[in-house]
Amino acid sequence: MSTDTSSRSVTCQASPNIALIKYWGKRDEELILPDNDSLSITLDLTDMHSYTTVSTSPSMTCDTFYFEGVLQTKLSSRMQKVLGEVRRRAKDMQNQFVEIRSQNTFPASSGLASSASAYASLAIALTKLFNLDNPDATAAYLARIGSGSAIRSVYGGFVRWSSEGECLSSCVFPMEHWPDLRLIILIFNSSKKPVSSTDAMQRTRETSTLFSARLATVNDKIEKLIEAIRIKDFNTFAKIVMMDSSQFHAVCMDTYPPVIYLNEQSKHLIDLVHAYNETDENGAMKVAYTFDAGPNPFCFIREQHAEEFLRLLKYIYPTADNNVHKHVADSDAKLPSINVPIAPNVLERIVLTKIGSGPKIIS
Amino acid sequence: MSTDTSSRSVTCQASPNIALIKYWGKRDEELILPDNDSLSITLDLTDMHSYTTVSTSPSMTCDTFYFEGVLQTKLSSRMQKVLGEVRRRAKDMQNQFVEIRSQNTFPASSGLASSASAYASLAIALTKLFNLDNPDATAAYLARIGSGSAIRSVYGGFVRWSSEGECLSSCVFPMEHWPDLRLIILIFNSSKKPVSSTDAMQRTRETSTLFSARLATVNDKIEKLIEAIRIKDFNTFAKIVMMDSSQFHAVCMDTYPPVIYLNEQSKHLIDLVHAYNETDENGAMKVAYTFDAGPNPFCFIREQHAEEFLRLLKYIYPTADNNVHKHVADSDAKLPSINVPIAPNVLERIVLTKIGSGPKIIS
Repeated sequence: MSTDTSSRSVTCQASPNIALIKYWGKRDEELILPDNDSLSITLDLTDMHSYTTVSTSPSMTCDTFYFEGVLQTKLSSRMQKVLGEVRRRAKDMQNQFVEIRSQNTFPASSGLASSASAYASLAIALTKLFNLDNPDATAAYLARIGSGSAIRSVYGGFVRWSSEGECLSSCVFPMEHWPDLRLIILIFNSSKKPVSSTDAMQRTRETSTLFSARLATVNDKIEKLIEAIRIKDFNTFAKIVMMDSSQFHAVCMDTYPPVIYLNEQSKHLIDLVHAYNETDENGAMKVAYTFDAGPNPFCFIREQHAEEFLRLLKYIYPTADNNVHKHVADSDAKLPSINVPIAPNVLERIVLTKIGSGPKIIS
Repeated sequence: MSTDTSSRSVTCQASPNIALIKYWGKRDEELILPDNDSLSITLDLTDMHSYTTVSTSPSMTCDTFYFEGVLQTKLSSRMQKVLGEVRRRAKDMQNQFVEIRSQNTFPASSGLASSASAYASLAIALTKLFNLDNPDATAAYLARIGSGSAIRSVYGGFVRWSSEGECLSSCVFPMEHWPDLRLIILIFNSSKKPVSSTDAMQRTRETSTLFSARLATVNDKIEKLIEAIRIKDFNTFAKIVMMDSSQFHAVCMDTYPPVIYLNEQSKHLIDLVHAYNETDENGAMKVAYTFDAGPNPFCFIREQHAEEFLRLLKYIYPTADNNVHKHVADSDAKLPSINVPIAPNVLERIVLTKIGSGPKIIS
């Protein structure tokens, strides 16, 4: 906080999270109460984060929002909802206004969950700025009403968002639990998704006959996944994560009209991952993918296989842009033989990252 | 039949059928007994058919198969299974051999159900050649053990394949019932499918948790669709057909590893159809799609909208090959305004056809 008593500010960093078991379906649109529990990994702050500063001073005459340094003409209805809730909870500050300045270290609207990191950092900063009661639960609540899955970014490590009771989130295992787990994010296409998640999940609820069958199995799947994470059983982890990703895309497909987020590149990467997993001489899994509401895969891999897989990606997805494969060290080691076609110039970017410790208040 | 008493032959034509409610899952691999009922339309013979001649004579020393005039070095195991069953049923002809000559008026392995028309024509021709008992049920049985969905091509009109009892098929409504219904088949890609239906449906049974939820709803959907067809309610017909297609592709997606038959073009056509349907001033449906285990759409449309839709296809899918849009008459009529991107040179072929009366014995 600032030292000036009449003018105060708080800055918070938070990173995106990637769902291992997806959230899909709201039983309450206004409060963003989910139909099912979900489980995610919060990413490391170093590689990707939102950086949000909230300030208040008696001289302010309205709420303002700067995104990437640019004053926005209008606060979104969700941001207004979050600020309204802050005023309700901090009653003695009802007539104070807030300036929000937010930026990302990674491209927004790229299917990289930038709204999760943005709303998590905003929620934590506001909770701190106005000294709100019960700060953990309050920050989680504020993050959730801003953008559902942002509630999972208020903690580090493995985070579960509950669909019961108050629908808050909690850390299941901290970052340190599985230190050799890595994430490789492949950006095939950074254009905006064709159907917003909000519209699509509402449509799924209304029209998919398979949706309730999915809901009936999610909690059991989460328990199995938590046990696999507890004992660091990568084989089981990988299979459950890939199957839940596909099942989420299946209920999107079963929606009327169908919602199709995966594209040719997604399909190609799916084939590549399954073919690569078959090359292990002990039949063990080396890598797993998951796809959010977009075509870009998030791959989970242990450190021992990361280098080989990155080299394989460089071989399968050659590109003129040297920066794409910057993570790959020169090596003479042989790649496993894989029967998947080479796909040149389809990959825009690779992000190599790991599990993170959660948001950080900077000042 | 030939007039020569010692050497006889029968020729039969049969056309492919397109499932309105899909068959997916076998409870018996050997007998090809399906997990669920399915309902299809048998196409008109004029446009697409298999033409199969079966002959027998005492001078033959083995079974032979000519496909498109070319002698095949080996009979497929399914063809052998069909001939074995014929010998079992026609006991006095156990030592007779058969020559099979089959050809198609349309490209095989193009996702146009050529195995359905091929096995239906073969089954009927063999039943007739050997004068087998109970010819309708026998031809249905023989077609089914050759290629599951071939059982629906032994009848014309709207055909239901039952998953209960003897798992035979029956005509629900004859061709004449809905004379203004048309089919427009768009061939985007005539290459071979990545995963065979047999392998994929087996994998779905073993790994999809949504599959049983699909099975639980299929019969109810068939009853609703039959009622819609009975009263020629195109709106209900279109919605049920599109939803079942998507649900079938959803359980393929929910399979591990996932099976994805639709491609970018499929997705584009889905968007086009939904956008076109929204142009009706009364909110009525004009066209419906269904996709089998491949990327090529089968569109159902009433005659009143066929010309306009064909003109729209010519506009959205322009191509240098004049033959593709040969069905489109010159017209100054305005096309409805549709917000779907133009996709040049993606369409290989359009087939305009209608419901057919079923197989025909030629000689």
